[in-house]
Amino acid sequence: LWNFAYADRVFALDEARWSSAPGDVEILFLAGDAYPAALPDMTQAAHVALTTFRAETLQYAPDRGLPELREWIASYVGEEGVRITANHVLIVNGAKHGLDLVCRLFLNPGDALAVTSPTYMSALRIFQGFEIDLIDIAQDSDGLIVEDLAERLRARKRIGARAPKMVYNVPEFHNPTGLTMSERRRMELVALAEREGLLVVEDDPYRRIRFEGVPVPPIQSFDESGRVIGLGTFAKIIAPGLRVGWVSAEPEIITKMVGFKSDGGSCPLTQRMILEYCKAGRVDSHVNELVKSYSLHRDVMFDMVTTQLPGATTRKPEGGYYLWVQLPDGMDSERLLSLALAEGVGFLPASWFYPNAGPPNYVRLAYSYCSPEAIAEGMRRLGRVFRRVAG
Amino acid sequence: LWNFAYADRVFALDEARWSSAPGDVEILFLAGDAYPAALPDMTQAAHVALTTFRAETLQYAPDRGLPELREWIASYVGEEGVRITANHVLIVNGAKHGLDLVCRLFLNPGDALAVTSPTYMSALRIFQGFEIDLIDIAQDSDGLIVEDLAERLRARKRIGARAPKMVYNVPEFHNPTGLTMSERRRMELVALAEREGLLVVEDDPYRRIRFEGVPVPPIQSFDESGRVIGLGTFAKIIAPGLRVGWVSAEPEIITKMVGFKSDGGSCPLTQRMILEYCKAGRVDSHVNELVKSYSLHRDVMFDMVTTQLPGATTRKPEGGYYLWVQLPDGMDSERLLSLALAEGVGFLPASWFYPNAGPPNYVRLAYSYCSPEAIAEGMRRLGRVFRRVAG
Repeated sequence: LWNFAYADRVFALDEARWSSAPGDVEILFLAGDAYPAALPDMTQAAHVALTTFRAETLQYAPDRGLPELREWIASYVGEEGVRITANHVLIVNGAKHGLDLVCRLFLNPGDALAVTSPTYMSALRIFQGFEIDLIDIAQDSDGLIVEDLAERLRARKRIGARAPKMVYNVPEFHNPTGLTMSERRRMELVALAEREGLLVVEDDPYRRIRFEGVPVPPIQSFDESGRVIGLGTFAKIIAPGLRVGWVSAEPEIITKMVGFKSDGGSCPLTQRMILEYCKAGRVDSHVNELVKSYSLHRDVMFDMVTTQLPGATTRKPEGGYYLWVQLPDGMDSERLLSLALAEGVGFLPASWFYPNAGPPNYVRLAYSYCSPEAIAEGMRRLGRVFRRVAG
Repeated sequence: LWNFAYADRVFALDEARWSSAPGDVEILFLAGDAYPAALPDMTQAAHVALTTFRAETLQYAPDRGLPELREWIASYVGEEGVRITANHVLIVNGAKHGLDLVCRLFLNPGDALAVTSPTYMSALRIFQGFEIDLIDIAQDSDGLIVEDLAERLRARKRIGARAPKMVYNVPEFHNPTGLTMSERRRMELVALAEREGLLVVEDDPYRRIRFEGVPVPPIQSFDESGRVIGLGTFAKIIAPGLRVGWVSAEPEIITKMVGFKSDGGSCPLTQRMILEYCKAGRVDSHVNELVKSYSLHRDVMFDMVTTQLPGATTRKPEGGYYLWVQLPDGMDSERLLSLALAEGVGFLPASWFYPNAGPPNYVRLAYSYCSPEAIAEGMRRLGRVFRRVAG
């Protein structure tokens, strides 16, 4: 009956996979949801937004977002060394929306894009809609291996394949691996991008959720020519439900991107609530609380990988939301998942994160949402299932 | 430096036009903003949403929207004769976002799409991003002339041009003309769509803003086979700033559309606020107030067209937000605008609304935003400018 467009056909192939996402499971290690006990009290911010600022917050908003919030963001990322003004900032409905806009602005069918393998599953889902080739780049403990990317570029030149138009990465507490890209690699990536005419899309939601160690400056802070586009979000520093994120890029890019922003300006109410929350100086103390909670969550889960999943290995991330666990050789993460779900435990299996093909014996366990007690109980259940699968 | 994609080049051509949109003018007849004095008090709804429902409203939301809100919408459009369930409803960030998703799901480059001429300027802006041909269909006092569409289809067949994939229309209080499509035409359109394999996209934001006369059932209520996709919004019945709208379509379409919804679920906070507001039974009384205000606004503006713009003609719409005013032959709406802006009066000139070419001597005057006093003052100023241009 309906004659869907190209991109639908891609999704159709993949529909079974996405619709199989576990839903109402009792204990979730599934998604990067916030710890419910750490959700902030936004009632005062909402009250001010809906009284003092009612004519702003219930009316159509500026296309690019509230000017004052864009200024706040410019100054916030400025603390990390990214030298931008409000004119470099576009407010979007979460960082994923920003990524979608980047793709719409820059990608034509047949273009290529480089990503780490594995990479963030929701970014892969967005890329699917654009009829592009994904080039998967290796990582090590210093993050994306820039020399591997350079080699892939040379190989594509040799065979006459199109160079990738952009590189997408989550350099700080990479999703799903938790790896942080070293400063040296970041500088190398910017230099390579400059040399080869690539764009770099830096998705940086977890930066402030650092439990220990020293933050590495954003890739964008090394950029001198406007080749790096930053994606940011309030989801991980205030609350996901507000659906407010941002794109930081050269003003010329922002101006063009507005043309694809079909929503007629992101919600001014949630923007104003965030602005009031930020101006009241509440972000830092809230982030401190989050870091305390998530650090404990990580510790509980990390320790129990050893005790409950014998033969599995994982790296202890210095921040972020996830453990990326390598199961013993030959253990299939999909099979483990189907049994775990029956025990009320969910996680995302390897296949969700690989742009092309990848090993089946990895799982991403999110420790953000569950309480330490729920993590412990979930890991015990997962351990029982694991031992059954390991036979 | 940057290598933008196709769609950007289209916007680039048009950038001067969009960036020339009047901004901070003292008196606005420009956009369909809500009357500030009629913005609702949402503080209680927000308080409940952020306390009782905090774990829902500050967390990631379901992809398709809050189930209870989707049910409410199904029942709300059910009152108009559209027989759907919550499974037919996708929550989006305003109806424009819904239109964008429809386009992404169905349109390939080179496709054709039929629209009235003139039509809603923001829909045109969205269509621009999809590399498609726009077929402009005539209207009369009964709205879109279905026989004109049928003739255009026959003509395209004769020359071997591609048939349009869909028809987009605002049938109730059409934007910008204020026309309402008759029931007979709606039935004819559904029959034609059935015969020719077209989709119909029905954008219906103004339905409840009816001052007099009898509502015509939505096109979707005549659809038996899932060929009609409805776009709805809370912008015109509660407040624009909440940025919550919906798509109503066959569940198969909704399921596929979710794949393109990059935001990870629309904001649950604004959804819950709306749901609490609706469940408290406040929509009808708020709409009654809006109808009272906007009816008066329309009357003031309509009467002053005659007194202040001699030789200009307009039709008195039975509802909605706009007057579509035909200026005397030979008067250029762009020239009138540039002079009006200097007097603190803004409006949208003819060229914004025509998919291809159109006459220059029309303007859309929005009466929604301004108070009756501001409308009167604005019309007097516009009258002075008009008489100068008429010379």
